Amino acid sequence: MFEKGIKTRVSELFSIKYPIIQGGMIWVACPRLASAVSNSGGLGLLGSGSMRPEDLERAIDEMNSLTEKPWGVNIPLSFKYSKDHIETVIRKGVKIVFTSAGDPTATTERLKKEGIKVAHVVSNVRQAKKAESAGVDCIVAEGYEAGGHNGKDELTTMVLVPQVVSSVKVPVIAAGGIADGKGMLAAFSLGAEGVQIGTRFAISKESCAHENYKRKVIESSDTDTIIIMRKILPTRALKNPFSLRIKKAEEEGVKEDELLSLHGELRAMRGIRDGDLEEGELEVGQVSGMIIDIPSVEEIIKKIVYEYRKIKQKLP
Amino acid sequence: MFEKGIKTRVSELFSIKYPIIQGGMIWVACPRLASAVSNSGGLGLLGSGSMRPEDLERAIDEMNSLTEKPWGVNIPLSFKYSKDHIETVIRKGVKIVFTSAGDPTATTERLKKEGIKVAHVVSNVRQAKKAESAGVDCIVAEGYEAGGHNGKDELTTMVLVPQVVSSVKVPVIAAGGIADGKGMLAAFSLGAEGVQIGTRFAISKESCAHENYKRKVIESSDTDTIIIMRKILPTRALKNPFSLRIKKAEEEGVKEDELLSLHGELRAMRGIRDGDLEEGELEVGQVSGMIIDIPSVEEIIKKIVYEYRKIKQKLP
Repeated sequence: MFEKGIKTRVSELFSIKYPIIQGGMIWVACPRLASAVSNSGGLGLLGSGSMRPEDLERAIDEMNSLTEKPWGVNIPLSFKYSKDHIETVIRKGVKIVFTSAGDPTATTERLKKEGIKVAHVVSNVRQAKKAESAGVDCIVAEGYEAGGHNGKDELTTMVLVPQVVSSVKVPVIAAGGIADGKGMLAAFSLGAEGVQIGTRFAISKESCAHENYKRKVIESSDTDTIIIMRKILPTRALKNPFSLRIKKAEEEGVKEDELLSLHGELRAMRGIRDGDLEEGELEVGQVSGMIIDIPSVEEIIKKIVYEYRKIKQKLP
Repeated sequence: MFEKGIKTRVSELFSIKYPIIQGGMIWVACPRLASAVSNSGGLGLLGSGSMRPEDLERAIDEMNSLTEKPWGVNIPLSFKYSKDHIETVIRKGVKIVFTSAGDPTATTERLKKEGIKVAHVVSNVRQAKKAESAGVDCIVAEGYEAGGHNGKDELTTMVLVPQVVSSVKVPVIAAGGIADGKGMLAAFSLGAEGVQIGTRFAISKESCAHENYKRKVIESSDTDTIIIMRKILPTRALKNPFSLRIKKAEEEGVKEDELLSLHGELRAMRGIRDGDLEEGELEVGQVSGMIIDIPSVEEIIKKIVYEYRKIKQKLP
């Protein structure tokens, strides 16, 4: 039976059935995950923030072999390979790019000139206006509850989304704290026309995260995430010996360079890719307490859409 | 023309037209404000956390002269007069009590024995289950975006509400980040059956907050609130010389007793009641950036209900 999609400016912009975007998470958003999302009616994004230029090139080829549906690449602009990645996506004919963590002005101009659709992730109204001025097609407003890197202003999805929506004309995708149909309905109530979902897709069969990490997230409860590196680069992760050690140092007023050396490099790789639950950085959103299983991407999307429609009918 | 209310378990529990509760904010929630909310179809709460026993007694008498509609009293259980206040509300025949900031076990038993309806404010799932075991009639789940005192776990409304809803059987009121009909619709999408609104009512004609404070909130933008006293008693307030000085001390790792003495006492009184914008604590929620006018309570409630209904019809 033909099942109807959910139509918004975001679903039309990307020509997708449901305005559900899978966050381009490092070490998680591989071709297997992103293609499963696109094949299930959402928009899959490759997470290039953990890829070298040759890795991204290979991942793009793999995506093209796995899906004929629309998909994109997430590029964190602060990443050391971001310039290479911009050239790679252009050369390889990628059609959709989500940028984050940086000034979108120059990259947006470059990408738009090549006919690429561009979204940019923001965490306050000023950044949203700047992204719109840069010419993006759409804005992702990501709240404090989101996993991984986070804005310093700590605006939550509940207050960020309506303020961004009323400040720009382009459509807005809500991110942070959304893992199910209830969250999608709440985001749309606030004026969003799409949702970007990270953690829920990270804990799926197709996600390339380590099984240890997936199981740890399933076991976690509502209060098990914290923000570390609050003054430098706020990052939401599960509590574990590594993150609690960093937090303690921050509370003791340890200086920035000491904190950076205490943090060290490639901690997210160690946690998410390699499954080191003690000394890795287990980036995850506050929704981790709501995640209790490891379904397939198709099951996740079907359930979100079903719940969205059911609850919409029953609103008081 | 007869206008229909919005029916949920919360509106039925308190016999109110709209399941809209006005937060019992210190120095703000006086009889003038609370009675206006109750007379407009919501539930007004007196904020007893800034009252001496004789002040509360007088405020209760005043409420009885100003409204015949249901209303209640908010009692922060950590407050030095909380035991007196519990006895006062019983003696004076108050019918609804919202408790916060403390263990609800003993007070709930005492209040329920007198036939008083009890709600308790929580900021995580464990506290919600404890409140339900204590016998409360309903739970307020308050997220990180809320003004004033805040839970240490930093759960946002978006993730706290659905997790509390699925952990208890009693109805749940969402608080934090809600200032309009969009916010109410989002909260109901997440499973709440009522909303508690603070900042929006603090910036109303009838609010007893100082005019300086009201104007300062109107001028503020999305990124103008911060959390201070994060390790001791997290409090959300506007950035000003006082709060920025505390924050700096915290970042430098200043010890708890020094922080307490740096903070000093009665800062909220100085800011909210007396209008000292430099050295007072200007407690306010992250919604402050969304507040741009000082309407009457009746106008606020009408607008919330109108927007709620309009946006519900237009959801994708």
